[in-house]
Amino acid sequence: MEFSSKLLERAVNEMSQLPGIGKRTALRLVLHMLKQPKEQTTALAEALQTMRNDVKFCKSCHNISDVEVCEICANPNRDHTLVCVVEDIRDVMAIENTSSFKGLYHVLGGKISPMDGIGPHDLNINSLVNKVKEGKIKELIFALSSTMEGDTTNFYIFKQIQEFNVFTSTIARGISVGDELEYADEITLGRSIVNRVPFESSLKL
Amino acid sequence: MEFSSKLLERAVNEMSQLPGIGKRTALRLVLHMLKQPKEQTTALAEALQTMRNDVKFCKSCHNISDVEVCEICANPNRDHTLVCVVEDIRDVMAIENTSSFKGLYHVLGGKISPMDGIGPHDLNINSLVNKVKEGKIKELIFALSSTMEGDTTNFYIFKQIQEFNVFTSTIARGISVGDELEYADEITLGRSIVNRVPFESSLKL
Ligand SMILES: [Zn+2]
Ligand SMILES: [Zn+2]
Repeated sequence: MEFSSKLLERAVNEMSQLPGIGKRTALRLVLHMLKQPKEQTTALAEALQTMRNDVKFCKSCHNISDVEVCEICANPNRDHTLVCVVEDIRDVMAIENTSSFKGLYHVLGGKISPMDGIGPHDLNINSLVNKVKEGKIKELIFALSSTMEGDTTNFYIFKQIQEFNVFTSTIARGISVGDELEYADEITLGRSIVNRVPFESSLKL
Repeated sequence: MEFSSKLLERAVNEMSQLPGIGKRTALRLVLHMLKQPKEQTTALAEALQTMRNDVKFCKSCHNISDVEVCEICANPNRDHTLVCVVEDIRDVMAIENTSSFKGLYHVLGGKISPMDGIGPHDLNINSLVNKVKEGKIKELIFALSSTMEGDTTNFYIFKQIQEFNVFTSTIARGISVGDELEYADEITLGRSIVNRVPFESSLKL
């Protein structure tokens, strides 16, 4: 792709660093910005930069937050003895949207995936194990997607915590196997939280 | 969509202003940025803002340029009597890529489209008519996409300039009718420039 402007070229190159955005799409987006008022591009650029520089992760659950401890963890009306283990903050958003869960979350930040070079130490697993060790959690709900990586991660965590006095469950698979949690409809997802089953009974032993 | 962070929410909202980027996609892109080094988001934000604020449009052909008169218009080795009329700078890039054209361009900035509220005065048509009036152009090649709007625009311009001494042609339709120029393969597009036909013979009279 030959550009008549270095400024345009640089903008397209930076945009096309984003996943799923090729050069053609990036060019289309950048040309759209040129047709909109300058203020719109300024607002986008500032929003991205402020977000990237100032966003915090809750020091308890690792959810994205604007404060040290997120609103969910800081809420005394939620059940602090019940913790739902999820992969990603999008899963927190999806479950919160169902209004069926009143416990806390723990965001792992991914799944164990040797193929992608992601091991247990790349994830927020230690802080979860430490929370369990402290003895304040009665139940852990595994809500990872039902893929090989999800199952591996569940099992790895299960092994780390089984010596402690905590009940483990997995969300009921009303959701079809292999589907991503975040794309599930609200009713199915809500029901799968309510109908969660003991983790051990979900293992094919 | 409920966000646990206002900064995140604002970034997603700004991203989803872009055409074809829904809230879900915007969230995916923004979460990706959070996993990359801060410098990458800074580079993107700065590239977009600098581009939007500092980019220029060539005062002769309206192509995007970093200088007042673009490299193509300023090149004495190109045929300044031959002008190819295109809709968009992406069409300039597509034709330049074929290396089959050594004249200049005129970028209209769109097509006449009453349905979208785009009339002749929203496009760079006056400056084209003025160039023709000055008598330095021997031939105008219409290279708009072969849609109703493209044909309308061609015909409108043709009516404005037919009293002047200029030959008009349209690119040969090796490209299938209705297809966007920018997605044509190089050989087809190059051939359609070389085999251009007199504009009047392309009208179904
Ligand atoms: Zn939290
Ligand atoms: Zn120019």
